[in-house]
Amino acid sequence: MPNNFPEPIENAIKEISKLPGIGKKSALRIVYFLLKEGSSAVESLEGALSTLKNNIEMCSKCRGYKEKTEECPVCSNPKRDKSILCVVESTQDMHLIDSSSGFRGNYFVLHGLISPVRGATPESLKIDDLKRRIEEDGIGEIIIATPYTAEGEATASYIISMIEGGSVKISRIGMGIPIGSELSYVDSETLSRALALRREIK
Amino acid sequence: MPNNFPEPIENAIKEISKLPGIGKKSALRIVYFLLKEGSSAVESLEGALSTLKNNIEMCSKCRGYKEKTEECPVCSNPKRDKSILCVVESTQDMHLIDSSSGFRGNYFVLHGLISPVRGATPESLKIDDLKRRIEEDGIGEIIIATPYTAEGEATASYIISMIEGGSVKISRIGMGIPIGSELSYVDSETLSRALALRREIK
Repeated sequence: MPNNFPEPIENAIKEISKLPGIGKKSALRIVYFLLKEGSSAVESLEGALSTLKNNIEMCSKCRGYKEKTEECPVCSNPKRDKSILCVVESTQDMHLIDSSSGFRGNYFVLHGLISPVRGATPESLKIDDLKRRIEEDGIGEIIIATPYTAEGEATASYIISMIEGGSVKISRIGMGIPIGSELSYVDSETLSRALALRREIK
Repeated sequence: MPNNFPEPIENAIKEISKLPGIGKKSALRIVYFLLKEGSSAVESLEGALSTLKNNIEMCSKCRGYKEKTEECPVCSNPKRDKSILCVVESTQDMHLIDSSSGFRGNYFVLHGLISPVRGATPESLKIDDLKRRIEEDGIGEIIIATPYTAEGEATASYIISMIEGGSVKISRIGMGIPIGSELSYVDSETLSRALALRREIK
């Protein structure tokens, strides 16, 4: 890429390429698109960003995002079984589970996983809020749905050790071979764990 | 994707997914990223967009983009041979040619190609401005660097017929096998044209 763009273009490229999944080339393409489309396209985008910034807040219960003036669409759903709580890494994961599974309990979003390398600690993730929620809401069962990665496992272990003294039932989301996947595409660690975790049929 | 997002999130997804190369899933990822990063991240992006909108304009000569208060960095470059003009589809193509080739003439950006299907006409592209520029600036040679696609060829034909009466030398960018490409990766049409366009060596 040439390095003699006018400064406002350089700066827009810099800011846009901070967004996830967007490199410098895509950012440049977006900048040219906006310049070609003109002021009104930029203004709609600015308006959307401004409303996002001003009207969205974190729900104090599930820690997903909600409109400031509205009830949380997840927590306020009357069909939810308030005694079951599913702990997830991110809001995306919450919506994935909620839209694709039959699960109808409540959620607790961690907004990250414990990772000493990245400076994410139980304190920075405010995992202790989970303990408070369990007590305040009388939760009877916790499903830990963090991924089976080093960080996901470390986070699950921390949560388990934090709450295992009480009367709360704790489970971890199932591990094994994904539906539709050939065994040759699954890593050997998953394969060996899937064998160890085999379910008896008859 | 679930369809019960709070309205400001829905709207931000809608606006962001209008950008080139960004689908609904990427837009959602960007929205969550911005919400997690907080107000200051959104504000830097808003600031960059606003400066882009307010401080950048089209250069009346090359039709590339320049800062309003500055000279066009392309046209004002003293090393340029002002008698040669390269006609390109987009600002991206102009920068590609300028940064990768030895070409040091001036440019004329079309901001599109003639395409009846997409409603892009010689009028909407203001191709006639090219004729005026040739006359006003005493251009002696035109290189048409539109791509070898149906639309690029149609645009080249239109430009050639528009100016061929005068004394201006007209050429079309070279066609053939790209450097480093194996012949098996080149389509047969290009191959047969490349044979027909062979250069005599000895």
